[in-house]
Amino acid sequence: MKKKDVLVEISARHMHVTQADLEVLFGKGATLTPIKELSQPGQYACAQRVDVVGPKNTIKNVIILGPTRPETQVEVSLTEARQLGISALVRMSGSIEGTNGCTLVGPEGEVVLEKGVIAAKSHIHFNEEEAKEYDVVDNEVVMVKIPSPQERDLLFDDVVIRVHPNFKAAMHIDTDEANAAGLTQAVMGEIVKKQ
Amino acid sequence: MKKKDVLVEISARHMHVTQADLEVLFGKGATLTPIKELSQPGQYACAQRVDVVGPKNTIKNVIILGPTRPETQVEVSLTEARQLGISALVRMSGSIEGTNGCTLVGPEGEVVLEKGVIAAKSHIHFNEEEAKEYDVVDNEVVMVKIPSPQERDLLFDDVVIRVHPNFKAAMHIDTDEANAAGLTQAVMGEIVKKQ
Repeated sequence: MKKKDVLVEISARHMHVTQADLEVLFGKGATLTPIKELSQPGQYACAQRVDVVGPKNTIKNVIILGPTRPETQVEVSLTEARQLGISALVRMSGSIEGTNGCTLVGPEGEVVLEKGVIAAKSHIHFNEEEAKEYDVVDNEVVMVKIPSPQERDLLFDDVVIRVHPNFKAAMHIDTDEANAAGLTQAVMGEIVKKQ
Repeated sequence: MKKKDVLVEISARHMHVTQADLEVLFGKGATLTPIKELSQPGQYACAQRVDVVGPKNTIKNVIILGPTRPETQVEVSLTEARQLGISALVRMSGSIEGTNGCTLVGPEGEVVLEKGVIAAKSHIHFNEEEAKEYDVVDNEVVMVKIPSPQERDLLFDDVVIRVHPNFKAAMHIDTDEANAAGLTQAVMGEIVKKQ
């Protein structure tokens, strides 16, 4: 019998930065300061915070998730994108070609991003062993049923499976998606295979 | 063959007020000033705007929808409730017993609400003839499939049918729910009967 139930975690606004952008924002030689491990092995929340500036508004003190990455990327909800005045595309992490940018303001400097503001597409992380247990493969699209504590049961119909040796079973949704299901904390969802 | 496709409209934050509260906020003898008709016959957006004040923040210039009602009620998204610092329950319009309150600030006065802040439960308005065409009855719970323009297809699993002679076929979702489906404007959804 295959596993179906998966942890669903709420991913609030955050950013990933390059080492170069980190040094512009926080000064030459700056390094990330881990303060909390995340569910995905090797990923961590950092002490450093950055203001995200859009044409309409600024969201202050957005957290950086480490480690540094090859490209800087800002993940917001579509509600927040509207507040900023930025049209954000729904994308998988790392897929930022053709997206809109913003300005990042740190204590030591500013970075003008030409691209990189996205709303995260809902996805499930699995390592290879877990993928077998759940009978899914990398890039497969599945549905996930979310039981709501507030009579907002939802079925996400377009959820991408991501398989990587460093991953650990968890679905990530953003705060709009969490609120649409009336969630304020992680819950167990049920994976439903597409026909 | 029964109809299945229904207009899905996005309902942004708004409030309904009593005549008494209207006069506290806008002065003795104040009346609502309609500026735009809504999809539901007899309902209209008003020129009057009111600040909604919570423990953490204020949302300025929230629109009043008319006509006046027997109870004042503030409808926000759960994202906005969190910004205000208010825990909002998901409720059908008019069902405000046991909900939290807030302070309303108008140009002429303030109203402290003991209750009335809700996030709207998703629902579909039908008049009696339409309900027959769609083969649904008042208070029935159905599912509604929403096609996303941004790869965020969703199935709302807990949508209440409301039948009233003054209604006209339209489903209402809030901005969190719209963003969770990647919607920025009204779309056609598909009603799926529960087994």
